[in-house]
Amino acid sequence: MLEELKKIVYQANMDILRHGLVVLTWGNVSGIDREKGLMVIKPSGVAYDQLSPDNMVVMDLNGKRVEGELNPSSDTETHIELYKAFPQLGGIVHTHSTYAVAWAQAGEDIPCYGTTHADYFYGAVPCTRSLTQQEIDEGYERNTGKIIVETFRSRGIDPVHVPGVICRNHGPFAWGKDPKQAVYHAVVLEEISKMAAITRDINAHASPAPQHIQDKHFMRKHGPNAYYGQKG
Amino acid sequence: MLEELKKIVYQANMDILRHGLVVLTWGNVSGIDREKGLMVIKPSGVAYDQLSPDNMVVMDLNGKRVEGELNPSSDTETHIELYKAFPQLGGIVHTHSTYAVAWAQAGEDIPCYGTTHADYFYGAVPCTRSLTQQEIDEGYERNTGKIIVETFRSRGIDPVHVPGVICRNHGPFAWGKDPKQAVYHAVVLEEISKMAAITRDINAHASPAPQHIQDKHFMRKHGPNAYYGQKG
Amino acid sequence: MLEELKKIVYQANMDILRHGLVVLTWGNVSGIDREKGLMVIKPSGVAYDQLSPDNMVVMDLNGKRVEGELNPSSDTETHIELYKAFPQLGGIVHTHSTYAVAWAQAGEDIPCYGTTHADYFYGAVPCTRSLTQQEIDEGYERNTGKIIVETFRSRGIDPVHVPGVICRNHGPFAWGKDPKQAVYHAVVLEEISKMAAITRDINAHASPAPQHIQDKHFMRKHGPNAYYGQKG
Amino acid sequence: MLEELKKIVYQANMDILRHGLVVLTWGNVSGIDREKGLMVIKPSGVAYDQLSPDNMVVMDLNGKRVEGELNPSSDTETHIELYKAFPQLGGIVHTHSTYAVAWAQAGEDIPCYGTTHADYFYGAVPCTRSLTQQEIDEGYERNTGKIIVETFRSRGIDPVHVPGVICRNHGPFAWGKDPKQAVYHAVVLEEISKMAAITRDINAHASPAPQHIQDKHFMRKHGPNAYYGQKG
Repeated sequence: MLEELKKIVYQANMDILRHGLVVLTWGNVSGIDREKGLMVIKPSGVAYDQLSPDNMVVMDLNGKRVEGELNPSSDTETHIELYKAFPQLGGIVHTHSTYAVAWAQAGEDIPCYGTTHADYFYGAVPCTRSLTQQEIDEGYERNTGKIIVETFRSRGIDPVHVPGVICRNHGPFAWGKDPKQAVYHAVVLEEISKMAAITRDINAHASPAPQHIQDKHFMRKHGPNAYYGQKG
Repeated sequence: MLEELKKIVYQANMDILRHGLVVLTWGNVSGIDREKGLMVIKPSGVAYDQLSPDNMVVMDLNGKRVEGELNPSSDTETHIELYKAFPQLGGIVHTHSTYAVAWAQAGEDIPCYGTTHADYFYGAVPCTRSLTQQEIDEGYERNTGKIIVETFRSRGIDPVHVPGVICRNHGPFAWGKDPKQAVYHAVVLEEISKMAAITRDINAHASPAPQHIQDKHFMRKHGPNAYYGQKG
Repeated sequence: MLEELKKIVYQANMDILRHGLVVLTWGNVSGIDREKGLMVIKPSGVAYDQLSPDNMVVMDLNGKRVEGELNPSSDTETHIELYKAFPQLGGIVHTHSTYAVAWAQAGEDIPCYGTTHADYFYGAVPCTRSLTQQEIDEGYERNTGKIIVETFRSRGIDPVHVPGVICRNHGPFAWGKDPKQAVYHAVVLEEISKMAAITRDINAHASPAPQHIQDKHFMRKHGPNAYYGQKG
Repeated sequence: MLEELKKIVYQANMDILRHGLVVLTWGNVSGIDREKGLMVIKPSGVAYDQLSPDNMVVMDLNGKRVEGELNPSSDTETHIELYKAFPQLGGIVHTHSTYAVAWAQAGEDIPCYGTTHADYFYGAVPCTRSLTQQEIDEGYERNTGKIIVETFRSRGIDPVHVPGVICRNHGPFAWGKDPKQAVYHAVVLEEISKMAAITRDINAHASPAPQHIQDKHFMRKHGPNAYYGQKG
């Protein structure tokens, strides 16, 4: 069942390790088959050298395990909420990458200080609010997803234009049209988090890049007249 | 004698090197056989490429060498004090990992800024007081252990819930139910030390994570209703 | 056509990856054949493991592709402006290396704090002004090049003595007499950016190195009486 | 001539690369044969992959090349001054390692914040004053050495107890009884420089370790009653 997607999700999980986004077993990637309404995700707490396409877990969007013997990632409910709210998403990555976590712990949006950021994220990367005690009691992981959705909707942010978020006191989620692009965005998110921390360290009063620079760089890669790469 | 434990302790010593916690020969891991009351520990000042299960040193809890030709780690007495005071401990790691040392040198507890920390350490990682001149003269390494114990007891901290400490102006000790888990906690301690330093750099007024978030994350992995991983 | 230069430019592109200046596909190196008036440059948005001497793109200095099936780097027009304005240049490197980008985002010149800097860059590495909306609309990449040239001319900086620049809110360009030397200068630029950020972190009021030290170190390697290396 | 020492010095030069202290070709190690009064040093500006025991350069202490076809390191005169002033030295290392350079650029002594430092350097690592214009004109490298010596003598520091220094606006020199120990001390110096920078970043008002802790740790490894390692 979903053999191809399991291979892709397995590979994406190994890629976040290769890109240095993972310490120990922290991190998980999922992918979705929109036609079947099924998601493939990494099992919970399994060492990376024990992962294989075969032990990926298949879940439906009600949170029911459809295939696999292992428990799915403990963050599964968060992934499900994001897939349900944002139909453009084909893959989701959660990590505890160092600098993105630091911004989440600092409780601040990551400002768009330059073109490296603007090439992939249109405007600041938002930092969510904290969950309340009640939200935690009701369903921690599901409400983590709901608060991400709330953050994007209340601020009017398009999740295709800003393919990631930092959850306050927790860490980053990133996404894309498929697991591979989600990993790509997770790598970018960590790198721009690092650049932004150093930027502020050099100049505590650094300003975001002018809006017309942000517009230009994002549109150069993503607008209708994009001309970056080989298919613009 | 204790051949299996010597292999485990040897492997754990190599693992702290592999995880980037060690510069040159700084760092040591021990493990204990509670039934026999004997501890296995790395020899002092030996290069990592010269270590083998065979040159691990066996000590009793009076500080007497029971087997091995090399001197045990100079920190042996500290390990012994911890094993005597905290019967839940099966393995102990001491390193001079960069960021944990920096917090020890800064003389501050490491605040629990987020869930990466809360998943493994319940509350701040305590920083001990300095030793007095008299405590140094009486027995530096033994009193280092005693002050760690004093820190946990006087603050009412359970060493199973907070599996590590930073010794003021010195560096970290971490522990666990066995040497492997002690190494795991030492890796976590270095990573959360790094995240916390960057967090404060981004926002000098960052607050610890709300208590209910800390409770949730620790209990998700460690409480009676833990559901992280494959055995919750 | 230009087979030798394509090999050199290919190798230089791989070298910026090897030196850790590149995340994902960000970065490009070009080289010029001054006699033929043709430039060889990396194709746009191609993964490094897919590059080869054969898919390097040959451009003339009017921005017309002369050979190659792939689109050239989206920064091609910037390279062209620099080659046209600075006839001493034989190779150009653009990267998004972390610390140089952070200085560009901070919007400050990189001060010459010491001899590591002075050995290769004579005085501060300048940070350009931002482009205006009109300059972006007219031709973003071409005007990026023009503003670099404006920066050097208005400040009276010789591009041979200061073989690099940081473009505000964007990142570094470095150059040299050939692609290999351009890569060398890009590596230096990232390292001195890192050293300068840490210097300021240690001492917010650090001063640039005294002028006579800067003179001495630059001249030791570059003046008529240079005596560093094997050919002084 | 001095075949054994050339091998040792070659190996020590490769070791500073392996330990991450070297960017490009920056850095050099020498060793001395005190009986013959001859020094072996790395040639100037040669890539590390081109080094071999055979192209090490033999110099006498008057700065005359005794064997070898390549120019010696441009820092040769500094090494010579140190060997002449400090007869206990058997090997010297100069690098531009990142954090030690940052302290040199910040123009401050590296405080002894903890035991990692105190284990090898007894008290702060001194930062020299800058050279005057006249000192540079008279002999830059020789006077760099003389100012290091002046720093130790005027402050009453024993170069065996403090086996390294940072030269203002330049970078570190470290030394030892032989080239291998000099490399060891250079590795320590970079690591304690990094730890100290982070310490200050966490707590701008961090104090040096109490004197009795510094005494204890240094004496534990170096005093007449040393008991660290296998030969105490």
